[in-house]
Amino acid sequence: MHNTISSTAQSQPDTGPMLTPEEFGVGARITLSVMSDDYAEIILGALTSTDLTGLSLTTDAVSTWVTGDEPSIARFVTELLAAAGRSGKHVSAHVLFSRGCPGEVVCALPAGRLPGPDALPELPVTGVEALAQWSLYPLDDAGSPGRTPDHMRDIYAAIDLAKATGTFDGSEHYVTRLSGDVAQIVQTVVAGWLLVGRSVQHVTTHTVFSINSPSAR
Amino acid sequence: MHNTISSTAQSQPDTGPMLTPEEFGVGARITLSVMSDDYAEIILGALTSTDLTGLSLTTDAVSTWVTGDEPSIARFVTELLAAAGRSGKHVSAHVLFSRGCPGEVVCALPAGRLPGPDALPELPVTGVEALAQWSLYPLDDAGSPGRTPDHMRDIYAAIDLAKATGTFDGSEHYVTRLSGDVAQIVQTVVAGWLLVGRSVQHVTTHTVFSINSPSAR
Repeated sequence: MHNTISSTAQSQPDTGPMLTPEEFGVGARITLSVMSDDYAEIILGALTSTDLTGLSLTTDAVSTWVTGDEPSIARFVTELLAAAGRSGKHVSAHVLFSRGCPGEVVCALPAGRLPGPDALPELPVTGVEALAQWSLYPLDDAGSPGRTPDHMRDIYAAIDLAKATGTFDGSEHYVTRLSGDVAQIVQTVVAGWLLVGRSVQHVTTHTVFSINSPSAR
Repeated sequence: MHNTISSTAQSQPDTGPMLTPEEFGVGARITLSVMSDDYAEIILGALTSTDLTGLSLTTDAVSTWVTGDEPSIARFVTELLAAAGRSGKHVSAHVLFSRGCPGEVVCALPAGRLPGPDALPELPVTGVEALAQWSLYPLDDAGSPGRTPDHMRDIYAAIDLAKATGTFDGSEHYVTRLSGDVAQIVQTVVAGWLLVGRSVQHVTTHTVFSINSPSAR
């Protein structure tokens, strides 16, 4: 099977209207877990308290899928996690961000110009601290013109950014540890995702958050 | 930075002793969440009931890292999730499987022969049903000799396997839906991971499980 990602993207980079975030597959899947008998009320309350402007949400039994522009998604994830954390209960969350591949596997895009990543969002501090473990995947088989695909180089650049922003908390097998305010962690993850997105069409990142853990330091 | 993955692997494929699973970076990170005031007892009880033969476990505030051979890891994940599910509480879990890159980013391996993937484990049915959302990432920048890197081809082969085993439950944005007995889902995910591992050194896969969800069908 021919890989449709790069060929589709690079054959018509500057023609037609700009693709929308949904057409370009910009979105997140969030699974929010609250370790409490009241989990349903806390999760629904957190969802109700967040700003959904510019976003489209679809919830199933495993996760909530949200699509829209990157700053709006980053704001939504931050507000949702912080609101759940303010319950004081032990909260864990898995967040998958993806861009550049709107479907399950087939990454063929409609005709049009590819949107560049939006500017890095500025997220107000929430007052809710978290620990996180972060994986970042540039999925660039063919490379961009003049560039050899090298996902280690791209990931290193994102980790350097985490170190510069102060959320870097160490290296583990398969993941990078992050710690800090929920907003700072989301900002780091989204910044790495967008940084890699400048040169790679299809980028995903998985982060597991832990808030109010009794076993935290 | 030169990508050390394929160069290290391919320069000495058949010399020295076989690398151990830990040296080759075979392992998983598991975050188990139980939506109950009794979550700590349920999680500790599930951990105590599992067979840890051949495995090394390290738990931190975000996840438990387990390393060992693939069949032992698959058995451990299955038993852990099923035991937590038997509490009757709503359980969610994030499981990251990784092989071929023992560290955080640098995938340089010690000298020695690379282990092939172990045979697909046969896992006894647990009687605990789950829904899952699955992402699979072959991270093969350079390709193996004679093969062009094409992560879509590898992922399609794994999805075809899920269809053949009956756990395939549909396609979503960024993920594949799986459903069935916990053992069948873990077997599907691990089989896809190992299938891709036959031709790609560094392969990761992320799966979010949901058990006893009140919003499940």
